[in-house]
Amino acid sequence: MPHSFSFERTHRDPETLARTGTLTTAHGSVKTPAFVGVATRATIKALEPQALVDLGLQIVISNTYHLHLQPGEDVVASLGGVHGFSGWNRPTMTDSGGFQVFSLGASKDHGVGKVASIFPGETAPTRKKRTGKPLVKLTESGADFRSVIDGSPHSFTPESVITIERKLGADIILPLDECTSPLHDHAYTKRSMKRTHRWAIRGLSAFRTLRDDPTFPNPDQVLYGIVQGGAFHDLRLESARFIGDLDFEGFAIGGSLGKSKRDMWNVLDWSVPLLRDEAPRHLLGIGEIQDLFTCVARGIDTFDCAAPTRLARNGSVFLKGAPRHRINLRNAQFISDDAPIDPSCDCFTCRTHSRAYLRHLCRAGEFSFYRLATIHNLRFLVRLMSDIRNSIADGTFSSLSKEWGFPL
Amino acid sequence: MPHSFSFERTHRDPETLARTGTLTTAHGSVKTPAFVGVATRATIKALEPQALVDLGLQIVISNTYHLHLQPGEDVVASLGGVHGFSGWNRPTMTDSGGFQVFSLGASKDHGVGKVASIFPGETAPTRKKRTGKPLVKLTESGADFRSVIDGSPHSFTPESVITIERKLGADIILPLDECTSPLHDHAYTKRSMKRTHRWAIRGLSAFRTLRDDPTFPNPDQVLYGIVQGGAFHDLRLESARFIGDLDFEGFAIGGSLGKSKRDMWNVLDWSVPLLRDEAPRHLLGIGEIQDLFTCVARGIDTFDCAAPTRLARNGSVFLKGAPRHRINLRNAQFISDDAPIDPSCDCFTCRTHSRAYLRHLCRAGEFSFYRLATIHNLRFLVRLMSDIRNSIADGTFSSLSKEWGFPL
Repeated sequence: MPHSFSFERTHRDPETLARTGTLTTAHGSVKTPAFVGVATRATIKALEPQALVDLGLQIVISNTYHLHLQPGEDVVASLGGVHGFSGWNRPTMTDSGGFQVFSLGASKDHGVGKVASIFPGETAPTRKKRTGKPLVKLTESGADFRSVIDGSPHSFTPESVITIERKLGADIILPLDECTSPLHDHAYTKRSMKRTHRWAIRGLSAFRTLRDDPTFPNPDQVLYGIVQGGAFHDLRLESARFIGDLDFEGFAIGGSLGKSKRDMWNVLDWSVPLLRDEAPRHLLGIGEIQDLFTCVARGIDTFDCAAPTRLARNGSVFLKGAPRHRINLRNAQFISDDAPIDPSCDCFTCRTHSRAYLRHLCRAGEFSFYRLATIHNLRFLVRLMSDIRNSIADGTFSSLSKEWGFPL
Repeated sequence: MPHSFSFERTHRDPETLARTGTLTTAHGSVKTPAFVGVATRATIKALEPQALVDLGLQIVISNTYHLHLQPGEDVVASLGGVHGFSGWNRPTMTDSGGFQVFSLGASKDHGVGKVASIFPGETAPTRKKRTGKPLVKLTESGADFRSVIDGSPHSFTPESVITIERKLGADIILPLDECTSPLHDHAYTKRSMKRTHRWAIRGLSAFRTLRDDPTFPNPDQVLYGIVQGGAFHDLRLESARFIGDLDFEGFAIGGSLGKSKRDMWNVLDWSVPLLRDEAPRHLLGIGEIQDLFTCVARGIDTFDCAAPTRLARNGSVFLKGAPRHRINLRNAQFISDDAPIDPSCDCFTCRTHSRAYLRHLCRAGEFSFYRLATIHNLRFLVRLMSDIRNSIADGTFSSLSKEWGFPL
């Protein structure tokens, strides 16, 4: 049994499913709802781990696929797991790598579409085969794929992924799943979901076997289950019931969330109420500002999303009240603008540099820009999530959401 | 007259021309000998200015050519000059851009060789014309060139460069010169040097006219002269005498320093004794570890060099005692190495991260690596220069140099 993992619910919004809580792990606690920083390769792009501490980020998510390929889980384990390896000694998740196997592995560079999975005798509807040899072969036992780094062959099974994640030693880990595409039809999505369910049982079983083995770096690790089912009502209900009944410590909503915000909200409206209220709920790969409000309102506790840091590197920085709550520093209007990105922001970047200087760095392609812009966008989200938590505690969540332009 | 610029010499090495001093500017003082960080576009690559303060760097050099093209000197001036613009409120130099006009402007991308200068009716010996239209046209009045950013036409004259540098507002500025190549012959180098001398007089005159104009950002700015003459004995003597007799506040050794360390040392041995002892001496674009010892021994007070930060970005980090005093973190031997780059280093990177983690970031191409490695290499040089200063004060400079493998 995990020794130091718990999730305490503290406040509820009277009008929505929004709630606040405290997620406690062996590496500290996370006030929820929370934004989870995306540290794919055990670093958030352009930021050293100490900068995350300084800006108040509570938790990061790294990727099993990437760390398996480079530097390898045994290297990470020998250095104390992702915490010892990176020096980030706070709560950490690892995604299972399922999404990466099926998307990055079959990337355009290699001449195949986003999804290239195969059932025996069946081709996924979205599969556009452009080479004779698929880069990913998916069977009941797991996935065979080639490294995007050097083309070397690798296999993931539900069991091997758990072993890799035990070695990586994050506080919260996720089992191998197949991440279907919004273009997959009902039949494919159902078959895929059923297999993901069988993999969930296998992953849980493997996790129980390994959990108390003292050779792994983090004895207090926990496993979340992943709800699949695409944007199909019956499948989401089935998956939420199936996964929700298993002995996971928390739940993630994964896979295709449809083709619109409305589809995504439907998925949450169907799935979340079927998950045990006392378990934390994570939404995989989602985190635009609007989503933070609308999905918290649907009972989500944690989010991870690469967009805020990717936007930053492209010059797009958050500013409340601007269109989509962001401005692009590449814009000529900022060339001599002596103001900080956001005069009300307390981040290092806003305390130290003008829009004009940041715009210059951005246009010159200076690496220092990536870091400064990323600091601002993450600090902005850290403060926004804090405001959201406070509003839930105060009973003003709906009005806060409306104030930001997202009536619930 | 400049109000707050001074150079106080404090100690001399009894065996060499090495000396310690304090260079005082309107933005603080610099203990010499000192390494000058290369902040070409008003930022050291991959480091925000505050990181330079934290690691103890004393002074940076930015580039007139780059800042003229982007964002333009008027923008920089409107934000308080390079200091106000970047937030680096410590001593700063600007190079004149002569080197960049003649090398970057005529870059390979544009189909010409490194040097593409033209005397009327004459082609420089190294010029390999690969396009019909030269990108740089050099005349008595100055240089006409095209921007590497957008191809737009620009002109530099000795006077306009001073105006640009007055607007940029660095503490120490340099006049327009032509930077000849080691492949230029005696005749070309001599004609170029004579023109650079005429430009020096014009630059000094323009500087005197503008110096006390209160519309410019830094009233305490000073102008150094640049000694040219290639690797030719008679020309270096002539240039050092000519430039040394002009009313510059300090001197830089520029241009071709020959084809070997021996050639470079000869140039310094010829030039430095002819420069007023009370004026500071800067060596442009040089700063390998060996050079810091051998050129300090020849009377150099300050150095700028992009190599230490470029090496860092390529994974090559300084470690005393390693071959060439550096190791490359890409090397497989560091894959599980839990030690810092240098156990005796007090930089943020060595205090915080292992070689294994840094190697992982380097091989993954993470931007965070560039910053962490750059911090180490610059901190290493800051400490080395401090050790060199202390050894000069203690009379142990020669033995320190020998200890590092560079007997003088």
